[in-house]
Amino acid sequence: MDAELINPFIKSVENVITTMAGISMTMEKPSIKRDNRTWGEVSGIIGLAGNQATGNMILSFDQPSILAIVSGMLGESFTTIDAQVTDAVGELTNMVSGGAKGALSEKGYYFEMATPIILVGKDIEIKQLSKDPIVLVPFVTETGKFVLEASLTKD
Amino acid sequence: MDAELINPFIKSVENVITTMAGISMTMEKPSIKRDNRTWGEVSGIIGLAGNQATGNMILSFDQPSILAIVSGMLGESFTTIDAQVTDAVGELTNMVSGGAKGALSEKGYYFEMATPIILVGKDIEIKQLSKDPIVLVPFVTETGKFVLEASLTKD
Repeated sequence: MDAELINPFIKSVENVITTMAGISMTMEKPSIKRDNRTWGEVSGIIGLAGNQATGNMILSFDQPSILAIVSGMLGESFTTIDAQVTDAVGELTNMVSGGAKGALSEKGYYFEMATPIILVGKDIEIKQLSKDPIVLVPFVTETGKFVLEASLTKD
Repeated sequence: MDAELINPFIKSVENVITTMAGISMTMEKPSIKRDNRTWGEVSGIIGLAGNQATGNMILSFDQPSILAIVSGMLGESFTTIDAQVTDAVGELTNMVSGGAKGALSEKGYYFEMATPIILVGKDIEIKQLSKDPIVLVPFVTETGKFVLEASLTKD
């Protein structure tokens, strides 16, 4: 996956989480996803589908990072991954992919977004039917860590 | 979800499985999905995204049904859910949604398909960020059972 395609997702993660939750983060070195497992305790998945680009975007959070982010978003304290937290993960997934969609359409890669799916559980066996690598971008916040997994194939 | 939208998925399931695997099936009564869990041992998920319709389609198989279907598709005997079986689940997911896509575009509902995702494991907590109900359609084969879960919202 080209840097041209991944960078709008990275910028959108930083923009959405900072704006919505008031939480800053540091990006760690991106890598290629090597296993077929969910990284975090809760993951938001969204299908990306268009004539010029097809794939999925996943945001996968450890428990401390998502509880702090959703507490920041909703202005109350969350201590477990409940229905409000999983809904917020779906909303974040929508907003992050929406930001990347806008930036990529300006570069000529147009796609629509499917409905977000939320998975609860770490180390769930998951894979994508694509020969293209999935780029994994870790982000560290004050309380925890989350990863962006992006796979977008030019058609 | 209207019958107008669900019927092309049902017809495509029957057409693809019969054609690709030589396996016949009986449809049971459709219902609305009430829990937030994967139904079967292995599930293929695909995002559907367009200007007129958005959602996801899931095919979720118990172990006996998918092993017989993939054995029929690939012409050799499979006894465990290995990488070839999960890839075949992804291909089936692609083919079934592709058939429905074609039929629905003729009715004026146009969408593109994301890259299929395959999940291994029963009773994994999963939900969709949509207020629309998910229609669950069970199919019984000679060896086992699988379900179609379709959610498509008119935009």
